[in-house]
Amino acid sequence: MPYDVTVLTMFPEAFPGPLGVSLIGSAWREKGLWRLETLDIRGFSEDKRGFLDDTPAGGGPGQVMRADVIAAALDSVSQAGRPLLYMSARGRPLTQARVREWAQAPGLIVLCGRFEGVDQRVLDARGFEEVAVGDAVLAGGEAAAMVAIEACVRLVPGVLGEAESLAEESFEDGLLEHPQFTRPRTFEEREIPEVLLSGHHKKVAAWRRAQREQTTRERRPDLWAQHLANLQAKGDKAQGD
Amino acid sequence: MPYDVTVLTMFPEAFPGPLGVSLIGSAWREKGLWRLETLDIRGFSEDKRGFLDDTPAGGGPGQVMRADVIAAALDSVSQAGRPLLYMSARGRPLTQARVREWAQAPGLIVLCGRFEGVDQRVLDARGFEEVAVGDAVLAGGEAAAMVAIEACVRLVPGVLGEAESLAEESFEDGLLEHPQFTRPRTFEEREIPEVLLSGHHKKVAAWRRAQREQTTRERRPDLWAQHLANLQAKGDKAQGD
Repeated sequence: MPYDVTVLTMFPEAFPGPLGVSLIGSAWREKGLWRLETLDIRGFSEDKRGFLDDTPAGGGPGQVMRADVIAAALDSVSQAGRPLLYMSARGRPLTQARVREWAQAPGLIVLCGRFEGVDQRVLDARGFEEVAVGDAVLAGGEAAAMVAIEACVRLVPGVLGEAESLAEESFEDGLLEHPQFTRPRTFEEREIPEVLLSGHHKKVAAWRRAQREQTTRERRPDLWAQHLANLQAKGDKAQGD
Repeated sequence: MPYDVTVLTMFPEAFPGPLGVSLIGSAWREKGLWRLETLDIRGFSEDKRGFLDDTPAGGGPGQVMRADVIAAALDSVSQAGRPLLYMSARGRPLTQARVREWAQAPGLIVLCGRFEGVDQRVLDARGFEEVAVGDAVLAGGEAAAMVAIEACVRLVPGVLGEAESLAEESFEDGLLEHPQFTRPRTFEEREIPEVLLSGHHKKVAAWRRAQREQTTRERRPDLWAQHLANLQAKGDKAQGD
């Protein structure tokens, strides 16, 4: 069974975008390892003029997408054990841990809202998980949906080549990656770090580890704190054994 | 002068995707308020076979994009005061504060890498800012680039309608948004919260504020801690005056 992705959106023409290129694209179009269906929410309005939004209860700028229209769109597809995601700046941040869980499911159903949002009652009634991609405000959920879908699909068995699958595991320990270098040996008077050319595997590994720790400390104090807490917990456990 | 966006990518066909629809799309195509140019990195290889990557110095899986090819692609466009972004899981997380700064520039140049990454020397030599969108590993930088570009372009004057522009300001204080509701009054036996129908503006504002604080505390302890620190700093300043 292919990994089955359904996107509920007012703008099906935004897809597939990045989901249609490279290994992700050929895993869909040529290998049939996953499936992408877009459903135009606008087709589910019962209003003669096709409206699917209305003014916010309690006042305020903008429009809110109606619960009944979203429910009708969602209920027209078979959920079949697929997690329901709603891309929203109000959501919990996307994490690789959550991506790994979603990739184990039969697929995903992803709702793309507009900025002012969707009536909360349909999110609660149907059990949508609200997910944020970066701390930035977007015009709509489509670009964020592509990030979440691409992250999941690349974990579907067979989608990536062997080299890419191997590399992915290096994120498991919660540190950022080390910097990369390749030929030519000199670029604009900048050399590849000597240790990487030494052929001394232990020294290479130690240098990379130090780089990963330094970069994580500098750029992601949140991940670094988590990393130290994990080490501490492991140490405590080892001492307790 | 339109806001000028150049994307360096191996997959120009992934664009415009979400950047071509709705208000963002018409601000580009019809109003000419911003400009989107994609540059195929593959055209800048000096190798006869068009290769632009090579194996990682020091060993390891996958391929690394060559510094000289990326430099040649970048140097073929006029930078003209535009920030250079490199979309990467190693980067600092995207924030609305950074987006606001980028939106003040004449435009953006965005480099989309593949997962194993770009030779670090070209990032350092040219001053790329490494930016992560969500804590997830992607197959390439294109979907993440769309998120960053959409976040910036929607802040370009004239791109959004008045209602959307107003709503955006509510993110300034670092709290997540309150939930939204709209007609119908009853959806599957779920009612719109009574206070929102009361017409009592102060009570509506107090309820929304409480919702925003609660959601931020539950979903984003990081933003909540920052919010409390800001309040504390303000209080200290007020007392010192």
